[in-house]
Amino acid sequence: MGARGWQSRCEANIALLSYTARMRVGGRHYRSLWADAGGGAVHIIDQARLPHVFETRTIASAEAMAEAIVAMRVRGAPLIGVAAAFGIALAVARDPSDESIARASGELRATRPTAVNLAWAVGRMRERLSPLPAPERAAAAWAEAQAIADEDVALNEAIGRQGLALLEREHAARQRPIHILTHCNAGWIATVDWGTVTAPIFMAHDAGIPLHVWVDETRPRNQGLLTAWELAAHGVPHTLVVDNAGGHLMQRGEVDLVLVGADRVTRRGDVCNKIGTYLKALAARANGIPFYAAVPTPTIDWDVEDAMREIPIERRAEDEVRIVRGLDSGNRFAEVAIAPATTPVANPAFDVTPASLVTGLITEKGIVRAVEGELLALRPRQRDRRAYST
Amino acid sequence: MGARGWQSRCEANIALLSYTARMRVGGRHYRSLWADAGGGAVHIIDQARLPHVFETRTIASAEAMAEAIVAMRVRGAPLIGVAAAFGIALAVARDPSDESIARASGELRATRPTAVNLAWAVGRMRERLSPLPAPERAAAAWAEAQAIADEDVALNEAIGRQGLALLEREHAARQRPIHILTHCNAGWIATVDWGTVTAPIFMAHDAGIPLHVWVDETRPRNQGLLTAWELAAHGVPHTLVVDNAGGHLMQRGEVDLVLVGADRVTRRGDVCNKIGTYLKALAARANGIPFYAAVPTPTIDWDVEDAMREIPIERRAEDEVRIVRGLDSGNRFAEVAIAPATTPVANPAFDVTPASLVTGLITEKGIVRAVEGELLALRPRQRDRRAYST
Repeated sequence: MGARGWQSRCEANIALLSYTARMRVGGRHYRSLWADAGGGAVHIIDQARLPHVFETRTIASAEAMAEAIVAMRVRGAPLIGVAAAFGIALAVARDPSDESIARASGELRATRPTAVNLAWAVGRMRERLSPLPAPERAAAAWAEAQAIADEDVALNEAIGRQGLALLEREHAARQRPIHILTHCNAGWIATVDWGTVTAPIFMAHDAGIPLHVWVDETRPRNQGLLTAWELAAHGVPHTLVVDNAGGHLMQRGEVDLVLVGADRVTRRGDVCNKIGTYLKALAARANGIPFYAAVPTPTIDWDVEDAMREIPIERRAEDEVRIVRGLDSGNRFAEVAIAPATTPVANPAFDVTPASLVTGLITEKGIVRAVEGELLALRPRQRDRRAYST
Repeated sequence: MGARGWQSRCEANIALLSYTARMRVGGRHYRSLWADAGGGAVHIIDQARLPHVFETRTIASAEAMAEAIVAMRVRGAPLIGVAAAFGIALAVARDPSDESIARASGELRATRPTAVNLAWAVGRMRERLSPLPAPERAAAAWAEAQAIADEDVALNEAIGRQGLALLEREHAARQRPIHILTHCNAGWIATVDWGTVTAPIFMAHDAGIPLHVWVDETRPRNQGLLTAWELAAHGVPHTLVVDNAGGHLMQRGEVDLVLVGADRVTRRGDVCNKIGTYLKALAARANGIPFYAAVPTPTIDWDVEDAMREIPIERRAEDEVRIVRGLDSGNRFAEVAIAPATTPVANPAFDVTPASLVTGLITEKGIVRAVEGELLALRPRQRDRRAYST
């Protein structure tokens, strides 16, 4: 695959400059992926270079899209689903045959084999395109991919409006800036726009509600740095802290609300999210601080009751812990080993926050308590195969 | 100061080889600081190069000792106290005048102005030397510094024996390997020998009790990597994890006991220790896992009742969070920035674990519950000015 098919274009390399921009990046609104109206090319923000360099790329083939997913230039479950859909649309634009669709589907699915949302999006594209005669497929593929993207935006925007109402109430009760702590990245760039956790924050900030966000760095992959970058780009006051700091901040009354995303939520309201979320939920409970998860309803797994027993926790590569990536003194991307290769490492990627520690789930349909009775009211009539996580 | 006075000697650069050595480093027993019997030179393990490179250095002047403390070649409150005492002894060997002692004392105290243990050791040396005629001072200084070192070893060894009895009981109750989780480094190299947390672990391991240690990396300074190095050098089974992982491990029954050090303990038993300790204590309580702190009685601050109100928490440099040090691909020490310099950072260094979450304190005089009545029984008749922390 490699660089084949790339039409790389550096639209802007405003790096540190963007940090002072209020609202969006460099004063301009970006989606994390957007398509040319006439088809033929998709543009992405190259997330592998964030938070250090802001750079966009143009993707003109399914192969290039697959490379972008593998290299984590696009990441976040919702976004890679949309990216894969456009990857198929790009393949169909060149060759609308069944073979072409099958080849692109297989290649895109193989990029992140465990990403349920990606497989869902590929399946939806195939279902839409298979019945059509070849000459109609290119336009239909582009429209379907765009629809998936737009649905994602609408979903996040709806969560944002629900969360905004919550933050308005929290602010009205205090009449001072609200301090929110978040973990990992459930942000704008993990979705097409808004982000599940950042949507309420952006909207509240834009509505003039004074707020400040404590951003956990989220070892080992440091996704918190992406959250900090998003908040900076949008002009939201924030402070980066190590994952160890949150309990101390809560003890000292410096956190009013914990707001996280979710990779999977059970029908009883257990929240499976990035490793370390559970520790923050414990500290929130111990200090009387509300703990909310922003949860699109497709993230709810109606088949799972007991997350502790039924959800297997992925153990990721040991070198994610041993090797840290950043910019060297010459501003070049570089890696350093903080531990010798011989040091034994365990790297569980997620943990489970029991429903009993969850104050509420902010969904696109409303905010519910983490109890089965309230969750079941959100259940769609027909089972939605989509899994939605950031 | 710089390199002046250095007589650097690389005794061994066995780096990764040492990781497979059972017991001590490369099969040999080391203190983290040791003195030539006849005076004139002190040897240290250069901790600024750990965990990647094991290298010792010879220190032959007070200036060189001050440089070693500033550069964190020696670190850990107990060890830098001993190092400062030997620094004064080295100055006195060259020039036993009052001026020489005053100059060395001032220079050494300035290396880590907030290190109470260092100031205590310098004060003890001056009290010992001031009344003596100049010709007697060199021998007395060397003997006094050696006495401080030996007292530190005895203190840690006594804690080890108390903790060993605890681990023996825990193992007897289970009849399977014990899994201990620890945070930060309260190890052998933070003291002269043994370490407060590692002493029980080394002794239990040597006594044939099967155990395994989960080592928190302990962001932002990653002191857990030193703990992992010590355990590897001694042959103790261990696994490095990010600080986010401990709650998950406890939920899954993979931790039997949490064992940490302490920077300061109040008369009521609140434990002030490295940031993040509190989160592990919360998770231990939530999962019914005992939480112990290894606490030399000089660490207990009899003047403080309520740690949350009375102990100020040091906020350290922001770049400790932004910049990560390690080995680059060419095995050279290098630093990378994980966050831009413009990202706002907060870096609180310690937190408070309330006595209510502490199962017990392992002191050199016995294991006590974290309640004022039991702690007061440990109080020395005369107030000991020494603060003792790792």
